[in-house]
Amino acid sequence: MPPAYPDRVNVSAPASAQELLDSLAGEVPRERVVTDPDVLESYSHDEAEWAPYALPLALVRAESAREVQAVVRACRARAIPVVARGAGTGLSGGANAVDGCVVVSLEAMTAIKTIDTLERLAVVEPGVVNDHLRAACAEQGLWYPPDPASSPWSTIGGNVATNAGGLCCVKYGVTRDYVLGLEVVTGTGELVQLGRRTAKGVAGYDLAGLMVGSEGTLGIVTEVTVKLRPLQAPQRTVAGYFDSIVDAGRAVRAVAEAGLTPSALELVDRTCLEAVDAWKNMGLSADADVLVLGRIDTPGTVGDDEAACMIRCFDGAGATWAAASTDEAEADALFAARRLAYPALERLGPVLTEDVCVPKRHVPEMLSRIEQIGRAHDTVIADIAHAGDGNLHPLLITPHDDEPARERAQAAFHDIISAALELGGTVTGEHGVGLLKMPGLRRELSPEVLAMHAAVKSALDPDHILNPGKMF
Amino acid sequence: MPPAYPDRVNVSAPASAQELLDSLAGEVPRERVVTDPDVLESYSHDEAEWAPYALPLALVRAESAREVQAVVRACRARAIPVVARGAGTGLSGGANAVDGCVVVSLEAMTAIKTIDTLERLAVVEPGVVNDHLRAACAEQGLWYPPDPASSPWSTIGGNVATNAGGLCCVKYGVTRDYVLGLEVVTGTGELVQLGRRTAKGVAGYDLAGLMVGSEGTLGIVTEVTVKLRPLQAPQRTVAGYFDSIVDAGRAVRAVAEAGLTPSALELVDRTCLEAVDAWKNMGLSADADVLVLGRIDTPGTVGDDEAACMIRCFDGAGATWAAASTDEAEADALFAARRLAYPALERLGPVLTEDVCVPKRHVPEMLSRIEQIGRAHDTVIADIAHAGDGNLHPLLITPHDDEPARERAQAAFHDIISAALELGGTVTGEHGVGLLKMPGLRRELSPEVLAMHAAVKSALDPDHILNPGKMF
Repeated sequence: MPPAYPDRVNVSAPASAQELLDSLAGEVPRERVVTDPDVLESYSHDEAEWAPYALPLALVRAESAREVQAVVRACRARAIPVVARGAGTGLSGGANAVDGCVVVSLEAMTAIKTIDTLERLAVVEPGVVNDHLRAACAEQGLWYPPDPASSPWSTIGGNVATNAGGLCCVKYGVTRDYVLGLEVVTGTGELVQLGRRTAKGVAGYDLAGLMVGSEGTLGIVTEVTVKLRPLQAPQRTVAGYFDSIVDAGRAVRAVAEAGLTPSALELVDRTCLEAVDAWKNMGLSADADVLVLGRIDTPGTVGDDEAACMIRCFDGAGATWAAASTDEAEADALFAARRLAYPALERLGPVLTEDVCVPKRHVPEMLSRIEQIGRAHDTVIADIAHAGDGNLHPLLITPHDDEPARERAQAAFHDIISAALELGGTVTGEHGVGLLKMPGLRRELSPEVLAMHAAVKSALDPDHILNPGKMF
Repeated sequence: MPPAYPDRVNVSAPASAQELLDSLAGEVPRERVVTDPDVLESYSHDEAEWAPYALPLALVRAESAREVQAVVRACRARAIPVVARGAGTGLSGGANAVDGCVVVSLEAMTAIKTIDTLERLAVVEPGVVNDHLRAACAEQGLWYPPDPASSPWSTIGGNVATNAGGLCCVKYGVTRDYVLGLEVVTGTGELVQLGRRTAKGVAGYDLAGLMVGSEGTLGIVTEVTVKLRPLQAPQRTVAGYFDSIVDAGRAVRAVAEAGLTPSALELVDRTCLEAVDAWKNMGLSADADVLVLGRIDTPGTVGDDEAACMIRCFDGAGATWAAASTDEAEADALFAARRLAYPALERLGPVLTEDVCVPKRHVPEMLSRIEQIGRAHDTVIADIAHAGDGNLHPLLITPHDDEPARERAQAAFHDIISAALELGGTVTGEHGVGLLKMPGLRRELSPEVLAMHAAVKSALDPDHILNPGKMF
C-alpha cells in the first residue's frame, strides 16, 4: 500500500511563506513566482494518478541555474521543501508536491546550448523536450538514443531525474548511459559541475551518475551534457501476432536465446490495442490478441538474417502470424500505436502503472502470473512492455469512482511486485520509485542498503529539503 | 607535487597489532594472515613507482566475502586502516599501503560463478583476471569488452575499483558501463548487494555505479556482476606511420571529424617502439617515428568503406604510409607491441605515468604541448595513447638514482596536468587518482565538489578506515 500521505491537502501558507516570497523577490521576477491556486493545483502532481500529493506554497518558473540556486538557498534557510519538476509526465509521483513545499519548474529552461559533432556531445538545459533534442541532433547527423514513450512531452531534466528508459534501451541503454556531466544545485545550495566533457574520466567519485535517477532528492539539475551516437542505421520491423500473452512472452525469450540484439522488442496486448483503436481507429485489434514488435538495425545481410531469425523465433513460440514489414509507414504506425497505448488507456479510467523488470528468461512466467493476479483480484490489467529488457508495464485499470475496484487493483499491484521480486526482478525498471514504489523499494533493498541511501541523502542534502519523503 | 607521504617507512607494530591478529584467528586461517616482512614489502605498493607507500601491519589473503567482512569489522573496532588490492597493477598508487594498515588481497577469489548466455551477464569473484573472464566468455560466444593494457594480469575487482578503460573503450565504453551489480563490504562492515541482475532497474540510488572507480575508499568489492555483449565481429586493422607526433594527433582528430567510430585507435611513439624493439626484436622503429593503429569492426562493405575512410584520414594528416593490414597475424603483432610498450619502457628506468584525457579536437595541441614540456624540463617523455578517446599516457622516464632528473620529471608532470586542464581535459582518464593524481584532482574539482566527495566518504565509511588518504 502507498504510504499514508495527505491526499490533496490544501495547506494554508504559514507565516514564513510571505516572508519567503518576499525574499525571492530580489532573485526571481515576481511574475514567475506563482501562488494562484488553480495554477498550483496543475503543478502539484505528475501523471501517477494514484499517488498522493499536496498543494505547494508556491511555484517558481526558473529560467536560470542562479534562480534555482536562489530558491534552494531561500528555502533551506527556512526549512521549506523544494520539489523540482520538468514536464510532469512521471508515472511514480516523484514530482508530486509535498506539504508546504515550493515547486521549481524547469520547463522554461529550453536552450540547446551546444551540439558538438566532433566530440559527439550536446549540452542542454533541463527543460529541453526529449524529442526536440533528438530532432536537433538528427540535423547534425547525430542521435540521442534514450526514447521513453513520453518523448514528445518529457524533458531531459526529468529523464535524468528518473534515469528514463525507452524503446531502444534494449540495445542502446538508458539515460545514465548517455549522461557525461551535470550542473546541479545541491541540497546545500551550491551550484556545482559534476562529471566531464571528455570521452573518459575517473577524477573522483561518479557523482554525476549518482544524481541520475535520484529523483530530485540529491540535487536539482540545471544543465546536462549528454553523449551522442551517429544516426541510427535504417531498421527492419518484424511483427508477430499471438493468441496468448504467454506465447508472446515465449517469443521474447526465444529472441534472447537465439542471441539476437534487437534495437526494439515491444509487446502490446489486446486491451491496449482496443483502446488505441477506440481512440485512433487503427484497426489493430482485429488481427491480434497480442502484438510483439521487433526491430533490427544491424546493417546489410547480417541484419536481414537476424530479422529472419526473429521471425523464426516468433513462429516457434506459436505466433499466428509473423513477418517483416515491407512498408515503412506501416511499421511506423505500429510503433506509434505502441506509444499511444498509455494515453489511450488513460481515457478509460484511472490507471495504476506498474514498471517491474524481470530476468528475460522469466518474461513468460511473469506475464502468466500477471494474468492470474488480474483474475484473482477481478482487475483489468493491460500489458505493454519493453519486453526485450524484461521491463513490463502491467496497467491496472479501474472504473471512475469505484473504491472497491481501486482497493482490488492495489492488492493486485502489491502481488505483481511480489511476483517480480520472487523471480529475481526489480520493482522499477525505468519509471523511478517516487511515491508509488516506496513500499516496493523497502521490500527489494536490504535494511543495510536503505541505510546507505539515507546516509548519502543526509550527506548531500543535510537539511532534507530536496523532494523529501520520496524514494525511501 | 605528490603529497608528503612517508616513503617506505617501516612501521613497528603497535600494541594493538598482535591483538588484531589474535582476533582474526577465529575468522581467517592463520596461514592466510601474513606478517613476513618480505611478503609485506611485495604487497605494499602497486606499479606506480613514484608514489609513496608504507609497510602494512599484515596482509590477509581473503578467500570469501565473509573473511573480508571479518577483517573490516576487526579493523574498524581498532581504527586500523584497510587497503584492498587485486593484482597490484595500478598506476596511480591507489593500492599502496598506508601507515599501520592491513592489506586485504582479493587475488585468491578467482571463481567465475556464472556465465549466463540468455541474460548476457557473468557473476565473478573480484580476483578473476580480466583476460581469464574474457576467455571464459568467449567459449560461450560472449564478450566482456573492457580491456586495459594490463588485461593479462589485472583483476576484475581492481578494474572495478579504478573504473578501468582500455583499447576498445573508444567504441565500447569502460568498466562502469558493464557493471550491473556488486557485492560489497562497506566501511561499517556490512556485506551488501548493490545494483541488479535485470537489464534495467532504477530502484534507488546507483550505489553500484558510485562504488565503481572509488578505489577502495567506499567499500571492498567481493563479487561483481557484469553485462556481456555478443562476440565482437572480426576487425580490420589500419596502420599509419607518421614523422611527427602532431601529425599523428591530427590523424586522430580527422577520424573523429569524419564521424568514424573505430573499435580501437591507438598511438605509439618512437621511444616506445624502440623500447619494444630492444626487448622483443620486433623491428618496429625502423619504419615509423609514430605509429597510429586503428581498428574497425563494422561488418560488411560498410566497414570496408570506414577502413578506407580511416586511411584517407591518416593520409590527409600527413602519414608517410597508411594501409589496411591484410595479414591478421601482423595486425595482432602491432597491437601486442602497443600492449608491451609500458613494460618495455619500465625496463629503461623509473617511469612516471600520466593519464590525462582531453577533448578529441585538442589531441594534436596536447601532444604538441607534451613535446614542448619535455624539452623545457629536459625530460624524456614517451607517448602512448588511447588516442581516439583523447586519453594520453605520456610516460616520463628518468635514469635510475638521478634525483635532479626526477625533480625535472615531476615538474613536467605538473605542467602536463596544467595543459590538460587548460584544454578542458581531466587529470585521469582511466588510471584513477590514487596518490599520484591527488594534487591534480584538487586542481580539477571545485572546493564544493571536493566537499561533496568528503561528505559521501564520511557517509559510507564514517570511521575513514577504507584506504584513507587516497583520492582526495
